[in-house]
Amino acid sequence: MVLKRWLVGDPLKSTQAAHERLSKTIALAIFSSNAISSVAYATEEILLVLILAGTAAIVWSIPVSFAILFLIVVLTISYRQIIYEYPQGGGAYVVARNNLGEQPALIGAAALMIDYVLTVAVSTAAGIAALTSAIPSLFEHRVALGLSAIIFIIVMNLRGVRESGKFFAFPTYFGIGVLGLMVGIGMIQAFFGHSVSLSPDHQTAVEDLTLFLILRSVAAGCTAATGMEVISNGVKAFRQPESQNASTTMFHMSLILATLFMGISFLAYHYGVLPKIDETVISQLARLTFGTGALYYALQAGTMLLLILAANSAFAAFPQLASILARDGFMPRQMATFGDRLVFSNGIIILGVFACFLLFLFNGDTHSLIPLYAVGVFISFTLSQAGMVRRWLIKKGPHWRTKLIVNGVGAATTGGGVIIISSTKFIHGAWIVFLLILVLVLMFRSIRSHYKAVSEQVALTRDHRPPLPRRNIVLIPINGVNKAVIRAVDYARSRPGEIRAVMVDMDTESTARIQIQWAQWGCGVNLFVLPSPYRSVLGSLLDYIEQVLEKEPDIWVTVVIPEILPAHWWQGILHNQRALLLKTALLFKERVILTDVPFHLKR
Amino acid sequence: MVLKRWLVGDPLKSTQAAHERLSKTIALAIFSSNAISSVAYATEEILLVLILAGTAAIVWSIPVSFAILFLIVVLTISYRQIIYEYPQGGGAYVVARNNLGEQPALIGAAALMIDYVLTVAVSTAAGIAALTSAIPSLFEHRVALGLSAIIFIIVMNLRGVRESGKFFAFPTYFGIGVLGLMVGIGMIQAFFGHSVSLSPDHQTAVEDLTLFLILRSVAAGCTAATGMEVISNGVKAFRQPESQNASTTMFHMSLILATLFMGISFLAYHYGVLPKIDETVISQLARLTFGTGALYYALQAGTMLLLILAANSAFAAFPQLASILARDGFMPRQMATFGDRLVFSNGIIILGVFACFLLFLFNGDTHSLIPLYAVGVFISFTLSQAGMVRRWLIKKGPHWRTKLIVNGVGAATTGGGVIIISSTKFIHGAWIVFLLILVLVLMFRSIRSHYKAVSEQVALTRDHRPPLPRRNIVLIPINGVNKAVIRAVDYARSRPGEIRAVMVDMDTESTARIQIQWAQWGCGVNLFVLPSPYRSVLGSLLDYIEQVLEKEPDIWVTVVIPEILPAHWWQGILHNQRALLLKTALLFKERVILTDVPFHLKR
Repeated sequence: MVLKRWLVGDPLKSTQAAHERLSKTIALAIFSSNAISSVAYATEEILLVLILAGTAAIVWSIPVSFAILFLIVVLTISYRQIIYEYPQGGGAYVVARNNLGEQPALIGAAALMIDYVLTVAVSTAAGIAALTSAIPSLFEHRVALGLSAIIFIIVMNLRGVRESGKFFAFPTYFGIGVLGLMVGIGMIQAFFGHSVSLSPDHQTAVEDLTLFLILRSVAAGCTAATGMEVISNGVKAFRQPESQNASTTMFHMSLILATLFMGISFLAYHYGVLPKIDETVISQLARLTFGTGALYYALQAGTMLLLILAANSAFAAFPQLASILARDGFMPRQMATFGDRLVFSNGIIILGVFACFLLFLFNGDTHSLIPLYAVGVFISFTLSQAGMVRRWLIKKGPHWRTKLIVNGVGAATTGGGVIIISSTKFIHGAWIVFLLILVLVLMFRSIRSHYKAVSEQVALTRDHRPPLPRRNIVLIPINGVNKAVIRAVDYARSRPGEIRAVMVDMDTESTARIQIQWAQWGCGVNLFVLPSPYRSVLGSLLDYIEQVLEKEPDIWVTVVIPEILPAHWWQGILHNQRALLLKTALLFKERVILTDVPFHLKR
Repeated sequence: MVLKRWLVGDPLKSTQAAHERLSKTIALAIFSSNAISSVAYATEEILLVLILAGTAAIVWSIPVSFAILFLIVVLTISYRQIIYEYPQGGGAYVVARNNLGEQPALIGAAALMIDYVLTVAVSTAAGIAALTSAIPSLFEHRVALGLSAIIFIIVMNLRGVRESGKFFAFPTYFGIGVLGLMVGIGMIQAFFGHSVSLSPDHQTAVEDLTLFLILRSVAAGCTAATGMEVISNGVKAFRQPESQNASTTMFHMSLILATLFMGISFLAYHYGVLPKIDETVISQLARLTFGTGALYYALQAGTMLLLILAANSAFAAFPQLASILARDGFMPRQMATFGDRLVFSNGIIILGVFACFLLFLFNGDTHSLIPLYAVGVFISFTLSQAGMVRRWLIKKGPHWRTKLIVNGVGAATTGGGVIIISSTKFIHGAWIVFLLILVLVLMFRSIRSHYKAVSEQVALTRDHRPPLPRRNIVLIPINGVNKAVIRAVDYARSRPGEIRAVMVDMDTESTARIQIQWAQWGCGVNLFVLPSPYRSVLGSLLDYIEQVLEKEPDIWVTVVIPEILPAHWWQGILHNQRALLLKTALLFKERVILTDVPFHLKR
């Protein structure tokens, strides 16, 4: 407990919750790192596809990048409308549930959940790739480094929203700053014709430059747009006026994202940088722009921090979604409870564990994880936009036609994204995501139907009458006379009623001795000695309880078990094994109620 | 439960216990397989040491074997005296505790326990070696085969003594029969000068033929005597007259052991057989005697079965020892309880698990396990014999001087064995055994001192007065009104006294609704609404309970928790998480008693 307090801080009063709201500066750091950090790998993923058609195909990276830019612009405009319509937070689940119905909402929720896990895994993997590009000797330790980073983020998040916000603001801005500096200096150098003596190995084509290949590179580039929905999910976390602050932040975020992404794509093409296994495109660009000096290392550090902290944004959004689902009965109810620090501890831990598992499974490799990414994001984009289209059609209101067109274009664009991504990446891993969405939706539904069955079973009907009080027989199983037993008798006597001590006769001699002791210390409670044909204490007790229940069909039987509670948990193995067996055997008997009376040992 | 019944059979009445006694024929099969099966590896271990001094040193195997023969004779005579003195079972622990005191007894017990585990591991490894000698393609699967064999024996033993006795009698006698046949035919062939064209590779010496080396080979040969004590531990399992039947069985066992061991040692020398990595000496001998035909495979099968079943003898002895220790308070009390089938299930499972672990750790290799073996056995031999010497000195009785001399020679011989084994094998692994003995003795002592501390704390003193009845306040934490809650109220009302329903105000609206429902269905029980400054249901409840306890320092507080018991265990994750937290938090509060009132769901 002391360790937990030290790690996650003291609990907060709920009146403090309002102060946990984020300023725009902090919010940009928390919510935009996800979207912006994707510039660290998006260009590289585009090039990785195009290079399959040989070095000459690289020229296509520029039009592909413009396609992605168009996507970013469309998403920015259409998501601002969602932010204003859903100031309580408008994730794909909420918007779809509100406008499209339950089934699309659950698909959206499942897609988002998978996406959050992948955000953590991909961002961490890419962050560690930035590190190992600068320090190649760490390359072989990348999985261990990634896992450590995720665990670190989990602990930070369990400490609470604001503190982790402060903690993460500086590195995020530092990362944005150095990336911006690189793009700026690179552009100036390029403008003034600064020519780098880079002669890339001419790679021969292994595939033809088909439309399909170009679409595949668009699909790869779509990873740049991942994370753009995070702000719309988290509007509630902004200071008032929430929607306006969130919208402004979204605009800033998109501007930074678009500038950095286009800049990096242009520079990579200009300098003829090609992807390498052990060094990222960004790292190569930085060496060309800054030389391998202090600025280069600052840029690698900044990129790494930005990516590692991008993983953090999912930790703000995932528990929110899980708690909304839990409140609607689609997730276990405890996901809806606040943790100690007003954050949803359960969700944080689950997200962290799954992300660690994924990172471990894919050996910490960004490129292997990418095909799974983006599918879920674009499904949720599409559902949100489609939901908004339906909303305008029904709700109408001022300027609804314009709004309809904006979200309609958004839906068409992102829907196109889903088709492109899933058709080009299906065999590379996107099928896993579709399978997982199916599994999650089935899980949501079965959890809800269980809770529904439960509430039907426990529901009180209008004509339900308060029951008449029933009689209660208290049984105290004993196997000796000592303070623990007397304490149980003492407790049983605290309320009037029939009390019986029962013991099983395993050995005539000790039974006689116990009977004599009972006469002295038993407080007048009757002692029943049970025969034991099977040499089984448990069997005889169960038989006796069964008899009592049969004889009097309308009573409660309370079994008061004197239990020794050791001073140290590991001493538990030396005690109460028999009590445990008895409790397990009685758990499913109607009308039998178990009560432990612990006797606390001091040593 | 059905699976368990099918695997281990129906429970037996304790009046059936007498019928579980063993006939001499069955007892020989159960108790002697351990000792006799050691001929399968003892000669090989002697040769493995001598070959270090080159092929010429092999001639020493004959005098070394005679030394072992002397040991067998001495042990047989001196153990017969123990069998008559301790008809209740005279293991090293019992004899040492009776005559030498607690410390030597615990050392003996620890040595025996380690020995039993090693018996299972070594015998199984050697048994699998017999199998893989005949079918070399199985060599790489030896660990998996060994583990399967141990698990098979565990299940058989959980079925009970007599059934496993019957089950094991035939293969034991079959193994003894084919080994005897091989020795007999081999001897006849050798006598009539049948010369095998075996030209062993002349191995060069890597060590000098020193006295130390010869003593090392004696130590290796001592493994032939392992298991000779088993009968003396299990006298109780024989039919009446127990001692006489046990003594006769011991004599038969020693005769078979001595004949087979000397025969194999002689034949191995005569034919010039040397140890190989992938084929046992016995297998080589069998090929030379029988040719590689049906008889050869019968012998390998017989040896394997004998060895695998030798492991079984430890499963009869280990739980007996554990239960004796448990009754004296040196082991957890549940080790003393009979299992379903009148056998000591706990001991069987523990022994099996440790043996599996050891087999796995040493990669199923007999030779690696051997240095750990024999040390424990000989320590327990020595303690038994020394205990008997002390006994005759004090007790005297008829012919006590002769008896003293017999056990004295036994003690000196086995004590010599301990010195030889531990000095020659110390660095090869015997140190592990000494360390484990130390650890076990410390464990025994700390368990006993814990039980002693407990019994002091719970003991009733002569002047202890029965306590006066105290008042009881019953609290029912609720978060809604449903059948489960009403059931808890119903139970609480079954005995008169003060009852308070308590709920934490997390949401004004639902609190008001619940208060109205309570007025209708709450059976007149007062509902207390607690404030929740920290948004924590648990924290508010704990605060309130603390207040009640403080206000009235002489009452019991019973917390009645309405708990939903799902129809399927895996639904448990969807329920009662809050109840679990509450229970954990209240476990260590004095005067607070927890009572679950389960509401059984049907679906």
